[in-house]
Amino acid sequence: MPISLDSPSYQEVKYGVTRDYILGLEVVTPAGEIINTGGKTVKRATGYDLTRLMIGSEGTLGIITKLIIRLIPLPEGKKTMTAVFRSAEDAARTVSDIIRSKVVPTTLEFLDRNTLSCVKGSLEMELPENSGAMLLIEIDGDPMILDRQEGRIKEACLKNGAVEFNVAANKVESDNLWKARRGASPSMLKFWPGKISEDIVVPRNVIPEMVKRLDAIADRHNLTIASFGHAGDGNLHVNIKVDKKNAGDMKRADEAIKDIFKATVELEGAISGEHGIGISKAPYLRMQLSDSEIGMMKAIKNALDPNNIMNPGKIFT
Amino acid sequence: MPISLDSPSYQEVKYGVTRDYILGLEVVTPAGEIINTGGKTVKRATGYDLTRLMIGSEGTLGIITKLIIRLIPLPEGKKTMTAVFRSAEDAARTVSDIIRSKVVPTTLEFLDRNTLSCVKGSLEMELPENSGAMLLIEIDGDPMILDRQEGRIKEACLKNGAVEFNVAANKVESDNLWKARRGASPSMLKFWPGKISEDIVVPRNVIPEMVKRLDAIADRHNLTIASFGHAGDGNLHVNIKVDKKNAGDMKRADEAIKDIFKATVELEGAISGEHGIGISKAPYLRMQLSDSEIGMMKAIKNALDPNNIMNPGKIFT
Repeated sequence: MPISLDSPSYQEVKYGVTRDYILGLEVVTPAGEIINTGGKTVKRATGYDLTRLMIGSEGTLGIITKLIIRLIPLPEGKKTMTAVFRSAEDAARTVSDIIRSKVVPTTLEFLDRNTLSCVKGSLEMELPENSGAMLLIEIDGDPMILDRQEGRIKEACLKNGAVEFNVAANKVESDNLWKARRGASPSMLKFWPGKISEDIVVPRNVIPEMVKRLDAIADRHNLTIASFGHAGDGNLHVNIKVDKKNAGDMKRADEAIKDIFKATVELEGAISGEHGIGISKAPYLRMQLSDSEIGMMKAIKNALDPNNIMNPGKIFT
Repeated sequence: MPISLDSPSYQEVKYGVTRDYILGLEVVTPAGEIINTGGKTVKRATGYDLTRLMIGSEGTLGIITKLIIRLIPLPEGKKTMTAVFRSAEDAARTVSDIIRSKVVPTTLEFLDRNTLSCVKGSLEMELPENSGAMLLIEIDGDPMILDRQEGRIKEACLKNGAVEFNVAANKVESDNLWKARRGASPSMLKFWPGKISEDIVVPRNVIPEMVKRLDAIADRHNLTIASFGHAGDGNLHVNIKVDKKNAGDMKRADEAIKDIFKATVELEGAISGEHGIGISKAPYLRMQLSDSEIGMMKAIKNALDPNNIMNPGKIFT
C-alpha cells in the first residue's frame, strides 16, 4: 500500500487510490485547536467527512499532523513485466485489452517516445530502435494465478504489436525492469534541466486521444513534450522542454499549457491528478470548475479560516 | 460492487467501502444551483473534495441528483460458505484467523445467537442445537485459487470449534446459505415488531469484546439484544427487543443505548457505521465528536446553507 499522498501511487490500479486508505487524521485547525477526524474503523457515518475535506486541501484548511492508515495483507506473489511498442496508441490499446481480459494489474505505467529517449541516453538502457512507448506492468496475488495472468498480458501486448516483452525472473530483474520508470523524471531533468511538469488525468479510455493531442500541441507550439505516468488510472505527467531564461520558450510553453488543460477538460479529465493546484495552476482553476463550485470551496475556506492564515494564495487566485 | 449508499455493502471487505466507488456527483445546492463535483477519473486534485463532503451529509448540504460510479470487472468465480459456532467469541476469532491467513473475503457476515433464534423460528432453517453464532463467508476471484482459499477458511473455522461448515455447490445452494443473513432483519421484525435498531462500528479486532459488552448491557437493563452485521469491517447492527407502548421498556432501552454508544466510543468505534446520525442519534453526537469538530461541521453547514433550508434538524441538535 502506498503511503505518500501525492508521489507515484503505483498500486492504485488494483487497490484504488491512496486517499481511500486514510481512515483518520489529527489536524491543527486555523483556530489553533487539535482535532481528530475519522478513526480506526473502515466505515463511519457520524457527520461530515472532515478527513476527506482535509486531504487535498493543500494546507489551506489546517495542518495534518497524524494519519491513521488502513493496512492490507502483503501479496503472496508478484510478477513484473515490460513491453515496448512502436507507438503510444499501441500501448494504450494494450492497456484497454489487459483490463478487458479481467486482469487488474497493481502497476500499469506508461512511458512515451521522448521519455524513453531521455532514459536511454541517461541510464544506458538497451531498447529497440525507434521505441515508441513502453508499459511497465506488475501483477500480484496468489502465485497459482500469476502465470495465467502473465499469459493474458503477453497475449494483449503481442496482439497490439509489442516489439519486445520481458518478464522478470527474480527481484534483481524486476528492479531492472523498473529502472526506466524510476529513472524517467531524473533522466529528463538531466537533459532538460528547465522542464515544466504538469500532472493531468483523463478517463482511461481516452489516453490514446490525449497522447495524440499532446503531439499536436507540441508541433503547434514548436516544443518537445514527453509524457509518462499511471496508464491504469489515466494520470499523465506531461513534461515540456524549455530554457527558463528564454522568454520565447516560456511564452510558447505558456500557450501550450493552456492548450493541454483545454484538451484535458474537453476529454472530461482534470488539470491535476495528484499534485494539486497550488499557485501555478490557480489561474486555470476556472477552466476546471464552475463559479458555483469555486464559490462553495471559498465559502468553506472562509468559514474555517476567516483570517486566511493557512497557506494563503494557494488554490484560489 | 454495491451501489446503495447505506444498505448492506456486502463486498466491502475485499473491495473497500461503497463511497470509495463514487467518483462524482450532480448536486442541487441550497442556492438552487446545479453543480457537478468530481468526474469520470479515479483521481483528481483540483480543490476541495466536495464529492465526499456531500456523501454522508444526510441531505443537509444539498440534494444529490446523479452519481458517477466506478465499475470493476465481475469476478470470474465465487464461493459461498457458512459456519456455525458455539459462541460469538469463537466466530470472532475465526474472522481474525481468516484475515491472518491472507484470504480477503468479499463477504464476512456475522449473526449472533438471538438473531439465529429469530431466523430459525421464522424461516424453518435447520441449525444445530444451541447455535451461538454463524458466519457467512464469500470469496471471489480466479476459480483456480478458490479451492485453496476455501481450504484455509475451513481450517480457520474448525480450529475455532465450528460445529457445522457448509460450502455451496451451486447458485441455488448459495442462495440457501444466504437465507439466514438476508432473512435476519425481516425475521426479527416478525418476532420483535417494536425493535430498536442501532448501527455501530468498532475496529475489527475488538468485535469479541464488543459482543461481550452487548451481552452485559442486555443483562444489566433486563433486555434482549440481537446483533448481526459485517464482521469484516466491524459494523454491527444491534437490535433491542422492546414494546414501544411500554414506557418501562423504552426507558430501559434508552439507558441501554447510552451504554452501547459509551462502549462503542471507548473501543474506538463510531455510533453509526452506515446509517448516519439523522434525528435519533443527534443527541449522542457529542459522545463521538469533540466540540471543535462539531463547530467545524456547523461552520460548513452555515457557510453553504445560511438559511438552514436543507434537512433542518438533522445531524446537529
